[in-house]
Amino acid sequence: MLATYSIVDKFKSLRATTLQIVCPLEKDDYTVQTAPYVSPPKWHLGHVSWLFEKILEQIDKDYKIHDVTFSKYLNSYYNKFGEQHDKASRGAVSRPTTEQIQRYYDLITQKIITFLNTVHLDASTEKIIELGIHHEYQHQELLVYDLQHILAEKYNPKIRNRRDDVLSVKQKQIHIEGGIYNLGYSGKEFCYDIELPEHKVYLNEYKIDAFPVTAGQYMEFIESGGYDDHRYWLSDGWNAVRKNGWTAPMYWYKQDGKWHINDFLGSRIVDPSEPVCHVSYYEADAYCKWAQRRLPTEAEWEKAACWNEERQIKTVFPWGDDSPSGNHANLLESYLWGPSKIGSFPQGASHYGCHQMIGDVWEWTSSEFVGYPGFKSGFSEYNDKWFTNQKVLRGGSFATPRDSIRASYRNFFRLDERWLFSGFRCADDV
Amino acid sequence: MLATYSIVDKFKSLRATTLQIVCPLEKDDYTVQTAPYVSPPKWHLGHVSWLFEKILEQIDKDYKIHDVTFSKYLNSYYNKFGEQHDKASRGAVSRPTTEQIQRYYDLITQKIITFLNTVHLDASTEKIIELGIHHEYQHQELLVYDLQHILAEKYNPKIRNRRDDVLSVKQKQIHIEGGIYNLGYSGKEFCYDIELPEHKVYLNEYKIDAFPVTAGQYMEFIESGGYDDHRYWLSDGWNAVRKNGWTAPMYWYKQDGKWHINDFLGSRIVDPSEPVCHVSYYEADAYCKWAQRRLPTEAEWEKAACWNEERQIKTVFPWGDDSPSGNHANLLESYLWGPSKIGSFPQGASHYGCHQMIGDVWEWTSSEFVGYPGFKSGFSEYNDKWFTNQKVLRGGSFATPRDSIRASYRNFFRLDERWLFSGFRCADDV
Amino acid sequence: MLATYSIVDKFKSLRATTLQIVCPLEKDDYTVQTAPYVSPPKWHLGHVSWLFEKILEQIDKDYKIHDVTFSKYLNSYYNKFGEQHDKASRGAVSRPTTEQIQRYYDLITQKIITFLNTVHLDASTEKIIELGIHHEYQHQELLVYDLQHILAEKYNPKIRNRRDDVLSVKQKQIHIEGGIYNLGYSGKEFCYDIELPEHKVYLNEYKIDAFPVTAGQYMEFIESGGYDDHRYWLSDGWNAVRKNGWTAPMYWYKQDGKWHINDFLGSRIVDPSEPVCHVSYYEADAYCKWAQRRLPTEAEWEKAACWNEERQIKTVFPWGDDSPSGNHANLLESYLWGPSKIGSFPQGASHYGCHQMIGDVWEWTSSEFVGYPGFKSGFSEYNDKWFTNQKVLRGGSFATPRDSIRASYRNFFRLDERWLFSGFRCADDV
Amino acid sequence: MLATYSIVDKFKSLRATTLQIVCPLEKDDYTVQTAPYVSPPKWHLGHVSWLFEKILEQIDKDYKIHDVTFSKYLNSYYNKFGEQHDKASRGAVSRPTTEQIQRYYDLITQKIITFLNTVHLDASTEKIIELGIHHEYQHQELLVYDLQHILAEKYNPKIRNRRDDVLSVKQKQIHIEGGIYNLGYSGKEFCYDIELPEHKVYLNEYKIDAFPVTAGQYMEFIESGGYDDHRYWLSDGWNAVRKNGWTAPMYWYKQDGKWHINDFLGSRIVDPSEPVCHVSYYEADAYCKWAQRRLPTEAEWEKAACWNEERQIKTVFPWGDDSPSGNHANLLESYLWGPSKIGSFPQGASHYGCHQMIGDVWEWTSSEFVGYPGFKSGFSEYNDKWFTNQKVLRGGSFATPRDSIRASYRNFFRLDERWLFSGFRCADDV
Repeated sequence: MLATYSIVDKFKSLRATTLQIVCPLEKDDYTVQTAPYVSPPKWHLGHVSWLFEKILEQIDKDYKIHDVTFSKYLNSYYNKFGEQHDKASRGAVSRPTTEQIQRYYDLITQKIITFLNTVHLDASTEKIIELGIHHEYQHQELLVYDLQHILAEKYNPKIRNRRDDVLSVKQKQIHIEGGIYNLGYSGKEFCYDIELPEHKVYLNEYKIDAFPVTAGQYMEFIESGGYDDHRYWLSDGWNAVRKNGWTAPMYWYKQDGKWHINDFLGSRIVDPSEPVCHVSYYEADAYCKWAQRRLPTEAEWEKAACWNEERQIKTVFPWGDDSPSGNHANLLESYLWGPSKIGSFPQGASHYGCHQMIGDVWEWTSSEFVGYPGFKSGFSEYNDKWFTNQKVLRGGSFATPRDSIRASYRNFFRLDERWLFSGFRCADDV
Repeated sequence: MLATYSIVDKFKSLRATTLQIVCPLEKDDYTVQTAPYVSPPKWHLGHVSWLFEKILEQIDKDYKIHDVTFSKYLNSYYNKFGEQHDKASRGAVSRPTTEQIQRYYDLITQKIITFLNTVHLDASTEKIIELGIHHEYQHQELLVYDLQHILAEKYNPKIRNRRDDVLSVKQKQIHIEGGIYNLGYSGKEFCYDIELPEHKVYLNEYKIDAFPVTAGQYMEFIESGGYDDHRYWLSDGWNAVRKNGWTAPMYWYKQDGKWHINDFLGSRIVDPSEPVCHVSYYEADAYCKWAQRRLPTEAEWEKAACWNEERQIKTVFPWGDDSPSGNHANLLESYLWGPSKIGSFPQGASHYGCHQMIGDVWEWTSSEFVGYPGFKSGFSEYNDKWFTNQKVLRGGSFATPRDSIRASYRNFFRLDERWLFSGFRCADDV
Repeated sequence: MLATYSIVDKFKSLRATTLQIVCPLEKDDYTVQTAPYVSPPKWHLGHVSWLFEKILEQIDKDYKIHDVTFSKYLNSYYNKFGEQHDKASRGAVSRPTTEQIQRYYDLITQKIITFLNTVHLDASTEKIIELGIHHEYQHQELLVYDLQHILAEKYNPKIRNRRDDVLSVKQKQIHIEGGIYNLGYSGKEFCYDIELPEHKVYLNEYKIDAFPVTAGQYMEFIESGGYDDHRYWLSDGWNAVRKNGWTAPMYWYKQDGKWHINDFLGSRIVDPSEPVCHVSYYEADAYCKWAQRRLPTEAEWEKAACWNEERQIKTVFPWGDDSPSGNHANLLESYLWGPSKIGSFPQGASHYGCHQMIGDVWEWTSSEFVGYPGFKSGFSEYNDKWFTNQKVLRGGSFATPRDSIRASYRNFFRLDERWLFSGFRCADDV
Repeated sequence: MLATYSIVDKFKSLRATTLQIVCPLEKDDYTVQTAPYVSPPKWHLGHVSWLFEKILEQIDKDYKIHDVTFSKYLNSYYNKFGEQHDKASRGAVSRPTTEQIQRYYDLITQKIITFLNTVHLDASTEKIIELGIHHEYQHQELLVYDLQHILAEKYNPKIRNRRDDVLSVKQKQIHIEGGIYNLGYSGKEFCYDIELPEHKVYLNEYKIDAFPVTAGQYMEFIESGGYDDHRYWLSDGWNAVRKNGWTAPMYWYKQDGKWHINDFLGSRIVDPSEPVCHVSYYEADAYCKWAQRRLPTEAEWEKAACWNEERQIKTVFPWGDDSPSGNHANLLESYLWGPSKIGSFPQGASHYGCHQMIGDVWEWTSSEFVGYPGFKSGFSEYNDKWFTNQKVLRGGSFATPRDSIRASYRNFFRLDERWLFSGFRCADDV
């Protein structure tokens, strides 16, 4: 993948894409914060640039920080870089202004390009630039989560980009044998420290669904009283239901007896054939208990995605080793698409026959987000300081940048978070 | 005053002034909310227009609301007009945008002008338009409080508009005799319902200071340990000091051993000869206890301001009955002035010789904000629903619009609020 | 009153009464705290003794504190006596034990008796002992409030002490003329500093009800939707209604279509002819607004209680100057009585014909609790540090100790408190 | 173990032990709650009896509940048994009284004994009685945690039961080879559902310490600034440090330059040779990061405890299969002992040479508390509803009842809890 185009091209493309994402915004949209876990779009633009500036500072001793007054505001959670503005109050900051931050964004783009064009990169410098790029990929997706939250109930799109030429398919269960599996990234390109080292785990044989749980399946859970029956819920989940008054996935509401959703397609009736999205871990777990199923572990998920039993090899993606810039998967054209109905993109299925593992919704697994055996921290304060009270999600959503994804990617969120594009797939013991 | 120019001129002038106040803002400044008690400037622009639209709706049966989606956001606290957006989250709203609200502001300005120019006003319609105007006067001043809060630490003014040609003066105490005093508004122009009815109160003889307590006097209280000694504080005040960590008035900070302030003059050393500003009721009361003085009641304040003992008459202003559009007082040129040093504007003194009662800082009195005996509510949900847990302030600050002020004006705030331009003046029993 | 029996007899009677009040308690009842504003009964026993010990310490230089480890726990809010245990956590303290505190109570009783019997009291010592006694009177009543809270829903009394021989009476309004009235205590016995100095106030003529508002009258307000209609409520009151979910007075509940109450008579149907009790200031004010009435000021209440228009004199009690140890009023036999139906005790009426002003329920007035003009603090940190955010109640309840009451007594509570025996009486402008 | 004595003897011994634990309490101690996570001792007595009553109800259709008014208070968290009293307010309940609960305790003891003596137990009934017994074992230990919290700073024991005849030992690391290990309970006696099924896990080779981290080792971490340096802490841990102001383990305080502890030995200087106790998961993890070590997983801990490499067998306890009623380990004589210095009880070491794995402190592992692969819930709402946001502790403390412990026992707590007897042992990758 890296081979195909230069790091400077990749960087330029990255920065252009970030600006495309915020294109449809009104000026006021850049500044507001609609929940403590949402960040204002201007903050994202500033923060990703600030991180590149920290990199410039590290690799160029003579580098002069553009404006030191930005620093506290734009530092997310890096104690090593000093104090941080309270996360829940990012929307109370009018200076630096959006315009100042846009200029700052362009300036840093220019400075990095100049740097990349003029300096011969050694391995460690390349690694840190790579990290800055992948960091921005992550913020591109977070930006999309935040845009949906900021615009929910207010978004009225001109075009609804949905494909309707979908195969008629049925949910089914795939049987996968047990034994030792090598979990983790086995490729040679960029991956995060937390995907390493590849290591042996022992799996019992198991079954896993061919498709993510659909909105239609999930509605049955709702309509059968799932949100009112404590028996399906973890204790922490039941508390979350009652405290937050959850009765359905986030962004859903009932009107004239039908479930609707507010998303980038506008306000619309939920399509029962698309993967359910915007559920917390607790809801995924409760659905499974109701359905007498369970969530897969991340090892089970990864094996179902990557293992080619026939050839006894592991691939980087469900469909093989080719990057998603090819034509194999249901991957982000733009965040205006939303998740695709099940049965779309049959050519992206895994060797075992699991569909839509990448490109629709992140899938909750039952695995706690902790370091793999033998984990070595690659970036200070980046991933490993979050090794508690979070669950791993696997896959990647329709808003995940193509160049950032692979099946070994371990996303992680707290168990009650729902504003991300999160769904799940069921598994079973045999 | 009303006689001097028509209501349509007054309205035009009002609306132009509001726009002048927000002139120096950057776009982002319009949208943010820096504390739960602050409102975004765009909200103020929208809210005052929304109230005028409610008036249009009431006086014109065919009136069509411009955009019903604005209503919940722009309703402050009027239950009669339906639901309200949470006050503490006004800064989380990006739509309506600032531009939409600016257009809405201009539209409503035009509609009211058209109405005033085409319809013959009956008394009750005039009264309600008058209320809309005075409502916007109040928001002009609140806007200034909020601008200072939003821009504190960030404001770096080009000009510092201070006058230095000030008489050398000394604090002194004025003796005022007791007996029956007629408290309340006695004029014939607009006043709020809470200034009526004029009614008899019995006052003991008392003394009151010629000048508000100065920053210099207040520093002595601070430096003698006033904020650390429970004996000076009301129980609720002492709790407020400890909970909020108060050690000085709001916007003050100590640097190189000197007290500084952030205000519309920028970051600067506090001038000991200006009235202390940005103190809560609790701080005013604690200062008095420390100084072995007390706060005046609102009746004592008003008599000191308005009573002409010689001629046995009451005036509307300390300097007489002429409106402040004349030259008699230290009144708002622009909010960039700040309060004036004591001894400025000697021609604005009251008959008893009390100086700077109007035009510098609002002055806390010891009187609870309740209805006068015989009070009749003039405007539903306007003033009387606030008749608890607030104290009356008298006077008017440098940010109070000239056309809205008179000595009988009863401002009111909760006892721990400090972001207004609030000071005080001491009194004594005899 | 003081003349009738010696201070040592008074003290002995006081201490015996306190022990009578806690007589019916189970051991566990002494230790628990059922709300942040409730104190465990053992704390009251300890606290009143601790205050007497502080007095002993002050008047006897050689006095040795019984146990210094009690001090922080038993100090309520006196900063001058050092740190205080968090009020809301008094129920988390098992040591000192109830038994230790009971022994401490008896020990201090003995020490004070010995002191009073052996020392000739000078005026200032007598004054401070007097304060200790009146302080304990106050805690006797608070103890009763707290017992009701601790035992609510659990109390099943053997005897229901109610009198049924009640005159058939009707609510009516008494007309009272205006002019100067001398407000405050005019007698020569003990009173609190806040009842002084007697001072002139000017009153308009007014009307006041002969009886407190009854439970029956209040039910009409409830049934007509009073708790659901914002128009009757102060803004702070409406917030309190919604935040606390109030739908009726405290301790009331509806069963089989009838309003019931839990009190010292057990769980029972509310008697419509008894004064309404356990309402906050906000509820009293809302009832008045609904009924198109208003609350009296404390001056109006006092004049209605004490002024003898015929003889142009002021009495200490509504029925004259005799202390309630005589037979004139409906006063505390025991706290198991509860308030009496209106029309009971006609001989206790005031000269103007106002009934049951003392001995049934405390009556909310519209007056803020602040110092009278010319107020001088008599006891540090006792009354005057509470001069904010509280309203004055006048009268005295069935749980107020007889020896502590007089018509000039100013009780005060925050506006949302309801666990006291609080009702109200309506007034009107003329 | 079960074989050695009958279930009725076991039950009698259980109930007698619970009463022994509360023996030293004063009456008031039974009722108070000193933190939201602490329960009043009387609640524990009632709750364990209430659970046995629920069992009686289930196995005997004619059983009549002793007092239905106890039910809501004594239900901890079982939604299937109806509503529950708020956990954080268990200390606000005076009725049922301690005496009533003590009578209830005795009554239920008697009823169960009668039942066991008169009925022939089928397997499922025995299983549920067994669960009731083990449930009470758990509450015995929780009671001890709570007693220490209630009595901290107030406990002044007559005897300090410490053994001083301790071998001089040094911390050292044990090397353990990798491969497949069978994790989980392999015996035939009672175990919880969460210890099953025994299943294969793959382990890398690793090193683990022979002894738990000592107080002396932990002091080095403190003194080197560990609590002030964010680099050692997980993000959630660093937040916990700052929010709670942690500077040392719970119950520690510094006096005259020395670390002291309040525990059942009274207030005393911390003995550097005893295992550190009362640390949260976050502190255990931070210590490891500082020491460049890591926590073991629960599989690593269990293998180090139970695997006999030589004989290729797994034992139930580190010292073999004999229950701790024998003489092999440092196990609860009484909770007045506290943890023993390292090097005590050498005969209790595991085959690998790990010491004091059972009987001193629970040891945090890095494993999330989730079900083992193939987990089947054995008891509804007992263990599996807690499968989130908790970490597994292994071992057993000096307060763990002997009859309840085995090496496969999985204890679990939230990551910020410290009032339990929790320590840890370090491990390493090879």
